[in-house]
Amino acid sequence: MNSDPGRDPTKQYHDASVRVRYAETDQMGVVYHANYLIWFEIGRVELMRALGFEYKLMETEDDCYIVVVEASCRYHCSARYDEVIRIRTRIAQAANRMIKYSYELLRDSDGRLLATGSTTHVICGKDGKPKQLPQKYREKFRSLLLEPATRNESA
Amino acid sequence: MNSDPGRDPTKQYHDASVRVRYAETDQMGVVYHANYLIWFEIGRVELMRALGFEYKLMETEDDCYIVVVEASCRYHCSARYDEVIRIRTRIAQAANRMIKYSYELLRDSDGRLLATGSTTHVICGKDGKPKQLPQKYREKFRSLLLEPATRNESA
Amino acid sequence: MNSDPGRDPTKQYHDASVRVRYAETDQMGVVYHANYLIWFEIGRVELMRALGFEYKLMETEDDCYIVVVEASCRYHCSARYDEVIRIRTRIAQAANRMIKYSYELLRDSDGRLLATGSTTHVICGKDGKPKQLPQKYREKFRSLLLEPATRNESA
Amino acid sequence: MNSDPGRDPTKQYHDASVRVRYAETDQMGVVYHANYLIWFEIGRVELMRALGFEYKLMETEDDCYIVVVEASCRYHCSARYDEVIRIRTRIAQAANRMIKYSYELLRDSDGRLLATGSTTHVICGKDGKPKQLPQKYREKFRSLLLEPATRNESA
Repeated sequence: MNSDPGRDPTKQYHDASVRVRYAETDQMGVVYHANYLIWFEIGRVELMRALGFEYKLMETEDDCYIVVVEASCRYHCSARYDEVIRIRTRIAQAANRMIKYSYELLRDSDGRLLATGSTTHVICGKDGKPKQLPQKYREKFRSLLLEPATRNESA
Repeated sequence: MNSDPGRDPTKQYHDASVRVRYAETDQMGVVYHANYLIWFEIGRVELMRALGFEYKLMETEDDCYIVVVEASCRYHCSARYDEVIRIRTRIAQAANRMIKYSYELLRDSDGRLLATGSTTHVICGKDGKPKQLPQKYREKFRSLLLEPATRNESA
Repeated sequence: MNSDPGRDPTKQYHDASVRVRYAETDQMGVVYHANYLIWFEIGRVELMRALGFEYKLMETEDDCYIVVVEASCRYHCSARYDEVIRIRTRIAQAANRMIKYSYELLRDSDGRLLATGSTTHVICGKDGKPKQLPQKYREKFRSLLLEPATRNESA
Repeated sequence: MNSDPGRDPTKQYHDASVRVRYAETDQMGVVYHANYLIWFEIGRVELMRALGFEYKLMETEDDCYIVVVEASCRYHCSARYDEVIRIRTRIAQAANRMIKYSYELLRDSDGRLLATGSTTHVICGKDGKPKQLPQKYREKFRSLLLEPATRNESA
C-alpha cells in the first residue's frame, strides 16, 4: 500500500499485478476488453487486503456484498499475452452506502498506461437489499480517500 | 430431441447450437480450448430442457446440484470465430447417484467433427453432500440411455 | 432489424438474444458483471449481420478491425442463470474513423431493464494503425443512426 | 523448479500459484470447472519459464504453437473464492512432435488435493501444420521427464 496521506495524496493507491493469461487474449492478438473489468476486481480486492481485511469475510461474516452498479473503462494501449500488468487502484468516493474506485492499468515493464477506469458499488445483503457499510470498513476506506472533503459525504 | 429408442439407439441425442463469440477466441485465431467445456454444459442443459425439465429448477426446487467430477475433451479441428457449432449430447450412463454425458461438437456448416468429450457428474445438495437423483428425473434420463443394459445399474 | 427511419427513429435498433450460461454466474448467484460487455459485443455483431454484412469478413477481407476504445455499463437489475436476455443495440454515432454503439439489456420474460451501456470504437488495420471505415460499411451504419444531424460528422 | 532427477524422480515438478478470482466462481459458490483448464495452462507456461524459456517467444520467434489435442480433469474437492491454488505441473511425455503434461491442483493453505488432470499437445506452425519441436526445447522438456525410458520415444 503506497499511502502517505499527509504529504502526497496522489500516492494513495494500491498496486496489484497480474500476468496476462492466454485465455484472456482474442484473435486480434491482444487482451479481450472485458477482461479489464476482471482485473479491476482484483485491484479492489487486493486494495482491501492491504487495508487489513478480506472481501471474502465481508460476504460471509458481515453479509455485505459489494455490488457493481456502474463500470467504465477507456482503453489506451493493448495489453498482450504474458505481459505483467500493474493494477493501480484508488478509492475515489466512500459514502455510507456507496464506494467508488478508480483504476489505472500499467504495463509493468515500462510503465506505459494501458487503460483507466472506474467502478461504482453499493452495499447489499445476501437478500439483495441495500444496506450501510459497517463502520469498521468505512473508516478504512476513508483513510485512503483522495479528497478529505468527501469524507463526510453520505449516500 | 432425436430419440426413438426402439429403432436406432444411436439417434438418442439432443442437438443444441452456439455461435462462437469473439471473447471465446485466443491469439492463435481459434477458440480457446477451455470454452469447449462451457459448450458441453450448454449441451446437457438443453438436453434436459428437451426432456421436459429445467436444470435451474432442479437446483431451486429439488436441491439437486449436478456437480462435475470428471471432464475430458479430444480436440480434432479448431472452432473459429462466428461459426455455428452444433453440440450433440448423449446420456452415456444414468445411475442413482451419477450421470455421464458424452458430446460431439460439429461445425454446423459442413458437419465437420471438431471435438468429442464426456463429463461425469454426481448429485449433491446445496450442502455439498451426495444424494440420489429424484425418481422423476432418473426416469427421464434413462429414457435416453444408449444401452438398455445399463438402466439397472446403480452407483 | 426494427428500423423505420421515416417514422419512429427510436425504433432504429436491433434485438439479439442470449440465454445466461452457468459459467457466466458468480457466487453472488447472478451474472458476473464483466460478461455484460461480452453480450454487448454479440449485440453489435448481430446488428451488423442484420445490416447485411459479417464482422468476420470486415477483418479478413477488408483488414478492418473494430477496436474498443471505451466501454461503460450501468447495472440496474441482476441477470440470472438460464434467463433469456434481449440485447437491444443502437448506433449512436458513425463517423469516418469512429463508431459508437449504445445498448439496453432486457430480461426477455418481462421486459425488465437490466442494464444500459455504450461502447466506442475506432477502425484499425491488422497492424493496429487507425484507418477510415470503408464507404460500403459507413453507409450502412449511418442508415441506422438515431439522429440524422450526426450523419455529416467526421472523426 | 523442484527437480533433482538423480534422486527422487517424483520431485520433477514445478509449482505455480493463482488466487481464485470472483469471476471464476459460479452460483454453486465454487470455481466453475472449466477454469481449471485455464489454470493448467498457467502451470505449463510457468514450468517452461522455470526451464529457461518463454512460451511467448516459441510462438513469435520459432513459429511453434503448442496446440491442445486432449485435456482431462478429475475434480476431487471444490476450489473456492480467494483461495490460493498451487498448480503442480509435470511433463509426462516429451516426444518429437508431442508433449503431455500432468497436473495436480492443491489448496495452498492445507495441501488438500482439489483436482488432477492432464493435457496432450502437438506442435504446429502458425499455418496449423504439425512440426517437430526444435531440439533446444526438446532437451529442456526431457530433462524433466519422470521416466527416463520414455526419453527415446518418438511421435
